[in-house]
Amino acid sequence: MSLLQDEIREQPQVLRRLFDEQVAAAMEIARAIRDRDTSCVVMAARGTSDNASRYAQYLFGALNHLRVSLATPSLFSIYHAPPRLSDAVVIGVSQSGQSPDIIAVVEEGARQGALTVAVTNAPDSPLALAADFVLSVCAGPERAVAATKSYTAQLGALALLAVQLAGDEERLNLLRSVPDAVSRTLDLEDSIERYAQRYTYATESVVLGRGYNYSTAFEIALKLKEQTYMVVEPYSSADFRHGPVAIVDQGFPAIVIAPDGAVYSDMMALAGELAERGAELIVISDQDEALNLATTPLRLPVTVPEWLSPFTCIVPGQLLALHITQAKGYEVDSPRGLKKVTVTR
Amino acid sequence: MSLLQDEIREQPQVLRRLFDEQVAAAMEIARAIRDRDTSCVVMAARGTSDNASRYAQYLFGALNHLRVSLATPSLFSIYHAPPRLSDAVVIGVSQSGQSPDIIAVVEEGARQGALTVAVTNAPDSPLALAADFVLSVCAGPERAVAATKSYTAQLGALALLAVQLAGDEERLNLLRSVPDAVSRTLDLEDSIERYAQRYTYATESVVLGRGYNYSTAFEIALKLKEQTYMVVEPYSSADFRHGPVAIVDQGFPAIVIAPDGAVYSDMMALAGELAERGAELIVISDQDEALNLATTPLRLPVTVPEWLSPFTCIVPGQLLALHITQAKGYEVDSPRGLKKVTVTR
Repeated sequence: MSLLQDEIREQPQVLRRLFDEQVAAAMEIARAIRDRDTSCVVMAARGTSDNASRYAQYLFGALNHLRVSLATPSLFSIYHAPPRLSDAVVIGVSQSGQSPDIIAVVEEGARQGALTVAVTNAPDSPLALAADFVLSVCAGPERAVAATKSYTAQLGALALLAVQLAGDEERLNLLRSVPDAVSRTLDLEDSIERYAQRYTYATESVVLGRGYNYSTAFEIALKLKEQTYMVVEPYSSADFRHGPVAIVDQGFPAIVIAPDGAVYSDMMALAGELAERGAELIVISDQDEALNLATTPLRLPVTVPEWLSPFTCIVPGQLLALHITQAKGYEVDSPRGLKKVTVTR
Repeated sequence: MSLLQDEIREQPQVLRRLFDEQVAAAMEIARAIRDRDTSCVVMAARGTSDNASRYAQYLFGALNHLRVSLATPSLFSIYHAPPRLSDAVVIGVSQSGQSPDIIAVVEEGARQGALTVAVTNAPDSPLALAADFVLSVCAGPERAVAATKSYTAQLGALALLAVQLAGDEERLNLLRSVPDAVSRTLDLEDSIERYAQRYTYATESVVLGRGYNYSTAFEIALKLKEQTYMVVEPYSSADFRHGPVAIVDQGFPAIVIAPDGAVYSDMMALAGELAERGAELIVISDQDEALNLATTPLRLPVTVPEWLSPFTCIVPGQLLALHITQAKGYEVDSPRGLKKVTVTR
């Protein structure tokens, strides 16, 4: 078994540990944020952590009415012209806590008197040391180069923070049901292993999601690029219609993330348009209508509320990346030209 | 001659008109923003306009110390859970001013008492009517499906606003030199037409830029997708290293935007790494060192300050998309499945 497969399967256990161990830390950070009476969050992250931050953009918006901006680290680390941050909460998200450009944003936030938070798997890292508060993602050592369990754990940590900030007990209980839902979703692996054969010679794809699952589209695309070397681009259904839809013709593989929820009808409409153009649809959904359009229907075994669906929807994407990599005959645990910790300035 | 080619060539004239006609409007909006003493801008846009907004993210940050977030329109139009906006400036950017999701963000901003601005080519559009202020991009009717002159005009309008907000006469004069620089950059067309032959059968590419030219990377990628149906993904040099670099192997075409400036050394380092992996480099630069790495060197004939380089760097990208489209034998003015005005919710 590969490290990657191991860590994909470890996710329910990581999430259970996280929700047990970090609930108090999240409450303390939530209290500090509430005391500031701020309306604005600035998040700094790269790669997988940036995708988790995209989830937080919707979550903090919808649950907490916070405006979330994803930082432009080069304004800090290269142009030395940081924006005003004193009235914001600055959150750095990084598995390793090592990347200098992300640390620079948190340090500048601290310098300007902003409340700063590190969401990291390394509570002793430079990022954690630079921040007022640390929310540990409790994922344990991540040994595969491609991040999987640290991604869902980052989603979990950010969701825990949003729920505590909303002081919403009901949502906290729903969040605690996520590890079981992820566990049941892992049962898709056998069928995904079979479906993956079909994409052995695929070289391109797009991944489409919207709202909460905009993050999922980015993260599935990233896993496929890192592992299978396919050129895969993520899009919101709305942005995709504004131009890029032109690339789709007969047989073009499109992964559509369409669980039940507020954006479902929009995703379903796009899936219909793509089917008319002859696209090959890989659909991640719990809805028959959407799955019926697919050449490769990946049926989610559990329906969770839409705001929690990124936890389950990412799992078939991770498994697809793993098994297409194996079908293509590439090394799962040593993707070419990648290291576990990427240091950027 | 195609409509697209016509409009690419019209850009210097559009920019001259814009800088003449909108300088007063930009000053009036700048005054209103200053009166609010806000530190935060929320921008709502899709497609090409979203790429222009990315430029503003760096520009407003570096020149005006403003925090800019790109709105998540679905929070407004689908989830009906908008974030707090009352202390922000809300800017909707749209050529046509028609897209309901963008209008929804500006309307919600107005409802909450935020200062609202429409940057549009249609000063009578619903977007313009919803906003307190209108900054017209003065591009004239845009008839090609792929936006070119309205893109550089949006860059121009946003730059005019940033410069007026900074009250910086020197930068205003520099901005007025841009139309001539764009005009001289158009002289690259003959050589780009020859270079384009080489990419007749290319199906994939990435476009790499950072800082101010992160916007340029997105816009070149979008033009190539819309016109040539290649799968082309834009990246910042930093994000690209965090995983996606794995897709690059022998002969993979990568477009590198590397004009002189603060991010040049980082772009140059990445170009070197890609050359080592055997990538085929298409380099847009005014620097010999970068151009020497390229199979296809696109030498910028004019060096402008880095904050203005997105105006010149986009031109070879637009011309490359035009001529690869012709080399591939596709219709330039009727890309498949696209309409001029895309309405998304």
